[in-house]
Amino acid sequence: MIRKKIEQAIGILGELGIDAWLTFVRESSNLHDPCLDIVVGGNVTWQSAFILTRDGQRIAILGSLDMAAHETLGHYTEIIPYVQGISEPLGTVLKRLDPRQIAINFSTSDEMADGLTHGQYLILKELLADTPYAERLISSEGIVSRLRSRKLPFECDRIALACKETVDLFSKLDQQLCVGLTERQIADIMVDIMEGKGLTRAWDADHCPAVFTGPDSAGAHAGPTDRVMAPGHLMNVDFGMRVEGGYCSDLQRTWYCLKPDQTEPPEVVTRAFNAVYEAIHKAGEFLKPGVQGKDVDAVARNHITGLGFDEYPHGLGHQIGREAHDGAGLLCPEWERYGDKPYAVVEEGQCYTLEPRVNVPGYGVATIEEIVVVTADGVRYLSEPQTKLMLIKSDT
Amino acid sequence: MIRKKIEQAIGILGELGIDAWLTFVRESSNLHDPCLDIVVGGNVTWQSAFILTRDGQRIAILGSLDMAAHETLGHYTEIIPYVQGISEPLGTVLKRLDPRQIAINFSTSDEMADGLTHGQYLILKELLADTPYAERLISSEGIVSRLRSRKLPFECDRIALACKETVDLFSKLDQQLCVGLTERQIADIMVDIMEGKGLTRAWDADHCPAVFTGPDSAGAHAGPTDRVMAPGHLMNVDFGMRVEGGYCSDLQRTWYCLKPDQTEPPEVVTRAFNAVYEAIHKAGEFLKPGVQGKDVDAVARNHITGLGFDEYPHGLGHQIGREAHDGAGLLCPEWERYGDKPYAVVEEGQCYTLEPRVNVPGYGVATIEEIVVVTADGVRYLSEPQTKLMLIKSDT
Repeated sequence: MIRKKIEQAIGILGELGIDAWLTFVRESSNLHDPCLDIVVGGNVTWQSAFILTRDGQRIAILGSLDMAAHETLGHYTEIIPYVQGISEPLGTVLKRLDPRQIAINFSTSDEMADGLTHGQYLILKELLADTPYAERLISSEGIVSRLRSRKLPFECDRIALACKETVDLFSKLDQQLCVGLTERQIADIMVDIMEGKGLTRAWDADHCPAVFTGPDSAGAHAGPTDRVMAPGHLMNVDFGMRVEGGYCSDLQRTWYCLKPDQTEPPEVVTRAFNAVYEAIHKAGEFLKPGVQGKDVDAVARNHITGLGFDEYPHGLGHQIGREAHDGAGLLCPEWERYGDKPYAVVEEGQCYTLEPRVNVPGYGVATIEEIVVVTADGVRYLSEPQTKLMLIKSDT
Repeated sequence: MIRKKIEQAIGILGELGIDAWLTFVRESSNLHDPCLDIVVGGNVTWQSAFILTRDGQRIAILGSLDMAAHETLGHYTEIIPYVQGISEPLGTVLKRLDPRQIAINFSTSDEMADGLTHGQYLILKELLADTPYAERLISSEGIVSRLRSRKLPFECDRIALACKETVDLFSKLDQQLCVGLTERQIADIMVDIMEGKGLTRAWDADHCPAVFTGPDSAGAHAGPTDRVMAPGHLMNVDFGMRVEGGYCSDLQRTWYCLKPDQTEPPEVVTRAFNAVYEAIHKAGEFLKPGVQGKDVDAVARNHITGLGFDEYPHGLGHQIGREAHDGAGLLCPEWERYGDKPYAVVEEGQCYTLEPRVNVPGYGVATIEEIVVVTADGVRYLSEPQTKLMLIKSDT
């Protein structure tokens, strides 16, 4: 896995015409540059430099006590240990390579390419102060975003597996849902099913799973509460699990709790759910290599507002992979908080969530989240889509 | 726990004469500023500002969907949500507070105070570009280092508990050790005992526990191998566990495998072990508030070299707490790789490891690691010290 991604990274350096990529880290189990999981595969204690070059060199400069662990991993072909300080071996290696550009892990727009701390940046500038290389530092965002976004086939397979397990969990949950359960009890059922599968959560335990029932629920990114699911509620869950290699799902599903006198949901609830479903599938039809994320978002957003519903207060979707939020480029509107992300151009091999929502006053939130991979001319769903609002009878 | 540390932080702001401390983060489950675990207690998805002021204000500016989770936590008394971007609410709050200094989390010398990424730093500078505050940013290292270092009594109790469990594990391990076990098998026994206690590792699974047997072992910071523990070997383990609240132990112990014709270790082995033991306890006697870390290291280092052994290729000790390596200030020599750390002055309430080692050619490494808390006039051992080299008989 690491070796395949290192090969892919070296190819991307060639494509972008960048001579060298330097991942510069220390005490990485405390503050873990996300690039370590892609092209290193281990942690370090002391100042360390992992260098990949356009011509295929793989050089690691490490504190001597970190050396054995990285020799065992075997991903770097030249491992240079030091005892007292990294400045001399780093200077020697850079002089030998003489790179015209050195990409380092900082980015204002992509947090996955922003693992270099400001203190480490200042140290690196100081280490290179008397060399020409201090002026040759550039952002690695172009490398990292391509490397994380362009899923290799084995990566899509793992995300699809995570989705399959999650959809299966939703169907097992559906069989156990009944009026009177609290959000927390529903979350507990989901966690039990997850543990039975031997899988782990895709994000923080405090809101994975997230469960929201009724018109007064917290909305999103909050944990389950003691609020009780009652007749007349829309109830939705947001959950992701992690399978082997760390690949994630991130899916949402919605149920409606029938009132004793109802055999089907109120018309406004059905219209809202269908608006969400249609928004996803219209956006999925539009999504292909070459389009911009903002335009995909607009397809879904305009469909929903065109039906008279409020727009959703977030982007349509994010990339997913080894993290639930993974890879620069979002399907999102041109809002300040999204920086440059709305303008990124979609590429083949990227995996996106599609997750619009509609708030239905008096009932709750209708929302669905699916995951697709971008193919040469469209998308393939990695999750089996929710097509119908699931119903909970009030007498069960 | 978070609330007590927030109160302590506000006191430290007063002591240092710093008006405001700003923890500025985004997507914090991907790249997690260590300060979040001390004064926030949760994660965020969007750009967020957690501000503590010298006069006791606790202000959080958050993406609207992150708000509910932090309201539930309840540690910040003023929570300001935003939908489109953080610039306007952040500007308004800073204008109201008008701090003369704003401490932010970057540091060249203390990685626990260096959680701000370089990209986030650039964003913050840009957000503050038209205000006086861009020029008032300073490093939070003085705050963070005091806050992490000065253990409150409940923190010392938890570290002592982690030590007690680990020493107990070593004694259970001692009963199961026999010639012929591999490093990996010894590690497996330790992990079984840990899991029986319901505890987790203090650092990365790949070298927690670390096990080294004989003269050709990897040395340190490497994982256990299939190397077999044989008569005539020094065998040492390095292990830490985490108890409730995340507090850690980090201890080392050494055994010697007697050869069939031996009833006690060779004289050089005993001398080496005793040198390590004495080095720890001489350093422990020297260690008190007001001394510099480099001078404590020198007491142990000079004792070992004075006996004719090689000096250890690392510092004598590090602080420990919610991470195995926690708090600036090391007991270490004046080597480049340690930056300013050798010069830090020891304070009451700090918890340090003491871990010198001696390499004994032909046998292996003799090493002990203990943990002490600095009191008003000396130290108190939080771990029950190893006083004698433990022996493994070759016929058992």
